[in-house]
Amino acid sequence: MVIDNNFYMSLALKEAWKYQGLTYPNPAVGCTVVGNYGEILAVEAHHKAGEPHAEVNALKVAYYKLTHDDTILQLDASSEIHTYLLHNHNDIFKNCLLYSTLEPCSHLGKTPSCALLISKLKIKKVYVGSLDTNKEAENGNAILEKNGCDVESKLQNVESNLLLLPFQKFLVDKFVFFKWAQRLNATVDEGIVSSLESRKKVHDMRDKCDLLIIGGNTVRIDRPRLDARLVDGKAPDILIFSREKKFDQTIPLFGVENRKVIISNNFTILDNYKNIMIEGSSKMYALTRDIVDYYLCFLAPSFGGKNGFDDVEDEFEILNVDKESKDIIMWMKRI
Amino acid sequence: MVIDNNFYMSLALKEAWKYQGLTYPNPAVGCTVVGNYGEILAVEAHHKAGEPHAEVNALKVAYYKLTHDDTILQLDASSEIHTYLLHNHNDIFKNCLLYSTLEPCSHLGKTPSCALLISKLKIKKVYVGSLDTNKEAENGNAILEKNGCDVESKLQNVESNLLLLPFQKFLVDKFVFFKWAQRLNATVDEGIVSSLESRKKVHDMRDKCDLLIIGGNTVRIDRPRLDARLVDGKAPDILIFSREKKFDQTIPLFGVENRKVIISNNFTILDNYKNIMIEGSSKMYALTRDIVDYYLCFLAPSFGGKNGFDDVEDEFEILNVDKESKDIIMWMKRI
Repeated sequence: MVIDNNFYMSLALKEAWKYQGLTYPNPAVGCTVVGNYGEILAVEAHHKAGEPHAEVNALKVAYYKLTHDDTILQLDASSEIHTYLLHNHNDIFKNCLLYSTLEPCSHLGKTPSCALLISKLKIKKVYVGSLDTNKEAENGNAILEKNGCDVESKLQNVESNLLLLPFQKFLVDKFVFFKWAQRLNATVDEGIVSSLESRKKVHDMRDKCDLLIIGGNTVRIDRPRLDARLVDGKAPDILIFSREKKFDQTIPLFGVENRKVIISNNFTILDNYKNIMIEGSSKMYALTRDIVDYYLCFLAPSFGGKNGFDDVEDEFEILNVDKESKDIIMWMKRI
Repeated sequence: MVIDNNFYMSLALKEAWKYQGLTYPNPAVGCTVVGNYGEILAVEAHHKAGEPHAEVNALKVAYYKLTHDDTILQLDASSEIHTYLLHNHNDIFKNCLLYSTLEPCSHLGKTPSCALLISKLKIKKVYVGSLDTNKEAENGNAILEKNGCDVESKLQNVESNLLLLPFQKFLVDKFVFFKWAQRLNATVDEGIVSSLESRKKVHDMRDKCDLLIIGGNTVRIDRPRLDARLVDGKAPDILIFSREKKFDQTIPLFGVENRKVIISNNFTILDNYKNIMIEGSSKMYALTRDIVDYYLCFLAPSFGGKNGFDDVEDEFEILNVDKESKDIIMWMKRI
């Protein structure tokens, strides 16, 4: 294993992918901070909108590692962490390297600008994966350089851009991902497929989606609720893809408050939404093939069941694979 | 991500799993060396029998990182690296930590004892995953401690033991693993399933196996050669599991030199072998369920084909998952 800049950036990428699907409307971003001697001080990610950016989470952990001052561990709000670091850093970061999968932000939004924070902390060098093309946040590199920070851009650029793609789609259009859970033998039926932890993650993603697409047959047969109850989250709007418009209104999904249910046999309604999850099997897979950006497979390490993915033919590139709890979670794109 | 002793050991474990199936008759072992300031100096593994142990590979890389003396990079033989390190270390390792998934060996075999090398280099502390129960190599910890090295045993012990199990089975009995390649939709037919890199890895494993088990039907239909030509390796003996003893002798596997082909409808012959791979699909899976230690799945990120794993029911624990080139490689055990 080669321990170099690519290794440090790949740790940031790996950490960021754990939160892909959970950061809307923000991007999934990861950050590694490396000390004076090449020691890894922190590998952190952005977890969800409203919480600190990846760089702030990483600098918080790195500060604690270097100072053992545990006051900072009590701070959760990004503005508090910014302020605390600015007041107490004592130039301890001046020989540190920072690796961020995305150009540090330049805008003062819910949280102050990361680029300004990093340059005021006098970080020696910043390695950037993707350049930020978001009008509100771009030019972070320029702020860093203007303030004397050395910047090297496009380290692991291809990998960082693949991590960033969902965000870039939110910004200008919409991001659509097809999520399914299957066993090793590709079945999706006969009982629960995924672990509780995987199902919680899916509920967490539903909480962050504004629209969930499901097939009419699945609604009729499974009578699902399709909410985010496992994480106490909000239920997304639903598009039931169906030619037949009549559904038994006692099916639980219709009874969820503050949700719109649309029944349609086309996808024009998608233009009103930004972060869209499709849940389904072979049929929905084929129907939605042309509108999907990424695929997300929860693979349970088991054999069983009878029916699942058949009569499909496609090839994917695996963008990230992780074992979380019992299951494997794979983000992919069609090639 | 928590950067602690478990993290450093998990890097060693991850690196070692890449060579699982390739180290026979030696164990798969990984090793991380961390410097004075917590910087990662090396993460290496044992690659194959006759080559340096994981600790030696890691110490070689760590020595170069600390000294930039590239003479050591020219050395491949374990004894040469041992000698060079002993003559040139100048106490540079005295504040280093070493993490090994297996207790460093105590025996002088093809390579000198790792425990002695580590203690002569005055490594400050050694973290050990699994204790070595191999009579020839055990007591490495005792050598380390006798020579003033601090030892902490059983760090990530469960994970290290799962990595070590194949070796423990070679030692006292035999290790049997069931390998298959499938697509995401669980098919195994209609053309080549795995990438060239995955197929090379399988050939490399065949080269290290002493027996390969295959079903009679597969032999009749696929007419395979079942050798290790992609890596210029030796072809293992073959057990064709079949009630019908008559086979067309022009099937390529019969024409491979220096190989025994046994045709049998039972597994008693397995007692003559140590490292045994089964290749097959559902039928062989069911037939060999009681004799298999580990399962190895090469998962191609594609949909296609028609037939594969059906009528099976089982649950697995994933021991390691890795993306290598295009495919996912999973080691599992049944639970």
